This record gives sequence, structure tokens and C-alpha cells, in this order.
Amino acid sequence: VVTATGEIWNGLRSLRKDNTGFDLKDLFVGSEGSLGLITAAVLKLFPQPKGVVTALASVKDPAQALQLLAIAQTQADAALTGFEFMSAQSTALLAQYFPEIARHGQPMITGDTVLIEISHPQNQEGATELLQSIMEAAFTAGVIQDATIAQSIAQSNALWHLRESITLASAEDGPQIKHDISLPISSLPDFIATMSQELKMAYSGIRLINFGHFGDGNLHFNVAPPAGPANRAERHQAHADFLLTHEDSIRRHVHDRVMAMGGSISAEHGLGQLRRAEAAHYKSEVEIGLMKSIKAALDPLGLMNPGKVL
Amino acid sequence: VVTATGEIWNGLRSLRKDNTGFDLKDLFVGSEGSLGLITAAVLKLFPQPKGVVTALASVKDPAQALQLLAIAQTQADAALTGFEFMSAQSTALLAQYFPEIARHGQPMITGDTVLIEISHPQNQEGATELLQSIMEAAFTAGVIQDATIAQSIAQSNALWHLRESITLASAEDGPQIKHDISLPISSLPDFIATMSQELKMAYSGIRLINFGHFGDGNLHFNVAPPAGPANRAERHQAHADFLLTHEDSIRRHVHDRVMAMGGSISAEHGLGQLRRAEAAHYKSEVEIGLMKSIKAALDPLGLMNPGKVL
Repeated sequence: VVTATGEIWNGLRSLRKDNTGFDLKDLFVGSEGSLGLITAAVLKLFPQPKGVVTALASVKDPAQALQLLAIAQTQADAALTGFEFMSAQSTALLAQYFPEIARHGQPMITGDTVLIEISHPQNQEGATELLQSIMEAAFTAGVIQDATIAQSIAQSNALWHLRESITLASAEDGPQIKHDISLPISSLPDFIATMSQELKMAYSGIRLINFGHFGDGNLHFNVAPPAGPANRAERHQAHADFLLTHEDSIRRHVHDRVMAMGGSISAEHGLGQLRRAEAAHYKSEVEIGLMKSIKAALDPLGLMNPGKVL
Repeated sequence: VVTATGEIWNGLRSLRKDNTGFDLKDLFVGSEGSLGLITAAVLKLFPQPKGVVTALASVKDPAQALQLLAIAQTQADAALTGFEFMSAQSTALLAQYFPEIARHGQPMITGDTVLIEISHPQNQEGATELLQSIMEAAFTAGVIQDATIAQSIAQSNALWHLRESITLASAEDGPQIKHDISLPISSLPDFIATMSQELKMAYSGIRLINFGHFGDGNLHFNVAPPAGPANRAERHQAHADFLLTHEDSIRRHVHDRVMAMGGSISAEHGLGQLRRAEAAHYKSEVEIGLMKSIKAALDPLGLMNPGKVL
């Protein structure tokens, strides 16, 4: 790290355990460059898993997705390397704009869907057996409606491509009100159900393009305006008009609920300039005070990434 | 956290992802109470593994222990839940004072020994099969000389009890010069070999009671004086005399090498008062300066755990 005073702090320690003073590393890592400039890092390497297998499972609702997560975690522990939720409306959007990509998920993705990935350190068979065992337990428990396990690496890749293409379909559809939220994992179903109902009642025709890292408690709870004109330019304009009127109130509505449920309004994207005022609004005075004290102590002239975070 | 100004910061977030500002949590966690007083914590729970199995493996030297670790990590990944090294002299000390406990490790523990634990989320058979597979691969590679896999929970417990009783045997033997060090894992064999040779040459009859969390790169590299009188009081006095003369120079010798090799002089025990001066000696001026700035910013009157850490 190059500090605000132009000194260099060398924190390049490739150690799992080091209890010799304050955790400066994580302080700088989470500061978005506002306390110092990170110029090097130590990376930890893990052996590449020998077997990886992916499946799609259709669930009735996010509550079933949570039950499926519990079964998968109990059976697979750290071998569960992916657990992604996709709302019915998020895959519907994909099918609308990229039917060739969505085709790989049929018929699973007609409702809420979960993408699961299992990795096995030793072989492909181990990964497949474990995933089959999870799916069987989930069927027996009535937690999933249907499932398909990828039969090849190409199929696995196609399922991941499907999941990752939701953002492309969103971009094609037009501007959305995007939220990068996290919640205690057990609260996700309640949050999704309550927020969806409230927003749909308040804004007729609104579409909830929700997807994300359910196993991390992290959801991209994105809100799309009602379906617009077929013409791309007209549709994007209609979206923009909707956002101009409703973005602030919808965002406040969603983030108020997130904070009330003990969540975070920026799970993985950070604050930057975009969320700076919101963070100041939601964080306690004590927390903002602590952050400002640290900022003033390490960067008294305010030279490092000014205008961001704080 | 109760801050130095008597305010309360509520950081009780049960989230895996939260990127809304500085990582205050880890700053307080690593401060040993010198920045604020932690009064509550959120704990993450994991499903209890259904199968756990333990083994002892005799290795020629720490270099073989490292090779065994690589095999175990590649095959077991996160299922490897324990990898403890015990030097020949550490188990010899145990056999001397607690032969009934050491008996459970015979004949393995006549040389350097590794205790391995494998956990399996689903069943005992899975854990046993995985551990057998690791041991077979290690035999084939010529990395271990002999091994015994515990056949019951009682036997597993007996092996852990053996490992954990080394400190009791040390206490019975008399005062030692204790080091709680960590190193990049790949450097452990070189460190142990070099330090042992240098210390044995410099201090005739010295005993190296080394054991610890090899898989974490964390070793309790303890140095016992030459074997003393049979009478307990006389022996402890002889140890105390040895420490009075040699403790500072041996500690400096060991810690100089640890720091030169990119390690830590306090892997898990913290600084407190005991290692405060040493940390100041070994850390860069920049790092001490950063720590002092943060301390002054959050606790300007120096009220929190004075005299510790900094």
C-alpha cells in the first residue's frame, strides 16, 4: 500500500495466521482506495477440483430454494461451489431476448430456478454422485419440482452462460432500478415475497428481475419497469422515463426494508460515489464517526480517492 | 463494540457479503481490546460433519510432512480438518512423563509424526475411505513410513489427547522458551531444519519440542533446556537458570529467522504485553506509524487496554 503520506507499507505476508497488531490489510482492502493505494497482493492458490458438475432445479418459490440450500450444504459442505437463484421473471426476460441461450434451461426455467454447482477434489464421478444424492433428497422432501443435471462440461457451461446472460437480456430490455443487496440467508424468502408483493401493488406491471448468489445471501434484486414498446429506442426511453419518476422512491423502499432486516445495501459492488449518500443515511452516527476518524488519521489532507465512500 | 468515547457501535451483521465502508469489524477483532471493547458477536454455524476419522503417520522429516500435506489437500480439500505435526523430541517428552497417553501412538511416534483428521459431511465410511486413499497415495509416493488409522471414536480421541498432552508433558518437564510462530507453509521444513541445526550446535543438549498446526503454517517451536535432574524441583530450577541466561538470545535468534523468512512471531496468541516490544522491533516504522495513528484517532486518551499491543 502506498499511504497518503507517500510511504510504502509492505503487508505482503503469505500467512494464514498472524496476530501481531491491527488488521491493516482488511482495512485497506475495504476502503476503495480512500485510505491508501494498493499496489500488490498475495494470492492463495487451491488445487483445481478434478470434477465439477452443474444442475438446474425448478422450485416453487424462494422458500423452497432455501430448503434446497440447506440440503445441499448438509450433504456437500465446501463441495457446494455455486448456488444461484433466478426468479421466473428474470429467466422469462432471457427467453424473450435470447431464446437460444434460454433453450438450454427448458423446461426448468419456467418458474423460479436454482443453478447448483458441485466440485469434487478427486474426480467427476464423485461430483456427479454427490449432486444426484442432493437432488434425490430434495425430490423426496418435496423441495424441488424438476431438475436436470448437466451431462457434459459443454452443458455445464451452457447453464452458467444462461445464468450470466440475464444481465445481457436486462441491458437489451432497457434501464432497470438495480440493487446489490445481501441479507441473512434465512431472511431471503421473506424479503423477496414481501418486497415483490408491495412493489407489484404499488407499481402495476412492474417486473422483478431477481437473480444472484443465494448461497451468499446476495441477491441482485432488480426492478424493471412494465414491459415497454417493441421498438428498442422507444422502449429504452419509456424505461428511462419510468426511472426518472420512480427510481428514488423504489430504491428507498427496497433499501429501507433491507436495512430493517439486518442486510446490506451493497453486498459486493462497494459504495463509490453512487451509494455514498445512502450509506451516510443508513449507517449509524457512531459508525460514520469511526470511519471519518480513521480517514482523517490516515489521510488528513483528503488526497486518496476524494469524494468516494465517505 | 463500546468505543473509547463510551458510544456503542453495533456491528452485529450476519452477512457473508457487505461492502459498505471500512472493515471496522476486523479492525476491532485484531486490536486485543486496545481500540474498543467487544461485547457481542455473531457466530456462523456449519452442519456438524457426520463422519470424522483420525490417523497418525510417521514421516522421516518435516519435508515429508509437507509432501503429505499436499497429497491430503489435493484429495480432501476442505474435508481435511486437522493436520498437526509433532517432532520426535516432542513425543519423546510425552512418552517420558505420560507413557500411558503416548502408548496410543506407538510405534508411530518414535520419529516425526503427523496427526491427520478427515471430516465427511455425510457418513463415517466416506471419511474412512478418503483417509485410506490419502494414506495409500502417501505410501506409494514414499512420503510416509508407517501409519495407523483410528478404528473408533475412542481411538480418535486418544490420538488427539496424545497431541494435546505435549504441553502437559512440557509443563512437567520444566520451563521452556516458547515460540508461537507462523511461516509460509512451504518454508516450514527449511525453517525447522536450519533452526534446529543452528540451535543444537550453539546449545549442546538442547531439545526441540516442536508441534502444532502445520496445515496452518503455525508451529509451536519450543526450545527446552538440556535434560535436567530427575528431581522435579531441581529440574525446574535448572530450566529456570538456563532460561535466565539464554532465553533472550535464543528468542531473538528464532524470531530473526522467522521474520527473515516472511513469518509472524505471534501466529495465534496475540501481542499483549509479552510481545509488544518485539513487535515494535520487527515491524516497519510505517506499520507502527499506521497503527499509532489509528489508535490515536479512536482512543485519543489511551483508555483502552493501555500498555498492550502498541
